Amino acid sequence: MILLGLDPGLGTTGWGLIRAEGNRLSHIANGRLKTDSAQPLPRRLAHLDAQLAALIVDRAPDGAAVEEVFVNANPQSTLKLGQARGVVICAAARAGIDVGEYAPAVVKKAVVGVGNADKAQVHAMIARLLPGTKIDGADAADALAVAICHAHHVASARRGVL
Amino acid sequence: MILLGLDPGLGTTGWGLIRAEGNRLSHIANGRLKTDSAQPLPRRLAHLDAQLAALIVDRAPDGAAVEEVFVNANPQSTLKLGQARGVVICAAARAGIDVGEYAPAVVKKAVVGVGNADKAQVHAMIARLLPGTKIDGADAADALAVAICHAHHVASARRGVL
Repeated sequence: MILLGLDPGLGTTGWGLIRAEGNRLSHIANGRLKTDSAQPLPRRLAHLDAQLAALIVDRAPDGAAVEEVFVNANPQSTLKLGQARGVVICAAARAGIDVGEYAPAVVKKAVVGVGNADKAQVHAMIARLLPGTKIDGADAADALAVAICHAHHVASARRGVL
Repeated sequence: MILLGLDPGLGTTGWGLIRAEGNRLSHIANGRLKTDSAQPLPRRLAHLDAQLAALIVDRAPDGAAVEEVFVNANPQSTLKLGQARGVVICAAARAGIDVGEYAPAVVKKAVVGVGNADKAQVHAMIARLLPGTKIDGADAADALAVAICHAHHVASARRGVL
């Protein structure tokens, strides 16, 4: 089962692909989809959508997941994030892929074992869980984290735990 | 020139199509795209996207426009609106249609003549500007308003006023 984690953002959307075989996880690829801040919003959203659609066609994931959003104190940032997030979730759903949503604490618990871990611990643990993986920055690391969380939940659901 | 005004929302997205020939405007159609609140977010966004993509293929507008957002006091509402708005803007941009964005006061000024008009005045004026039009609720009326605003700006740009 190939799972795609996504960390949506208008400027940079992190992505991470893992293979889950039972409880065994392995890294496939990770990276960032970028849009040009000099372009108008509609073009940036369409570019993000096209890049993600291409990634999905190329890699054919069986499932996808995003983190639930910590709503930002700045409403304009929340709106901007919401717009990118809508496009990202929609691109996966349009391709017929279910998109799981997990609270940040659930992602941290899945990766580190505790829900109040900090970012550095999450990133360090990802490096340990997916050894030999070159990670394309924090956004891709966050995307891998949510993919790992999704893998745990899919495995638990199959065992009838959830 | 056929212009598509859009009033994005996750539950209901209003749309309005007008024909602009020089300064003459006429109504083509208006309506609402709805999604089922019982469905999960990804499916709702994909359904909104598919309905709008179908409308755009069917009607082949030459341009589209949305209102800039009054950021809501409630951050969760802002995020939700942002997600729907991102999908709506992206669907138009993906179809190769430019999407204009206008501040609410600019839309009101274009329709009513003053930037501080209230909703009721805007809706009454739309009924007057597009006589004989049956309007499918407030969201479609707002969509027609932004389409009319866009038509004025396109016409002004052609005359070299803007």
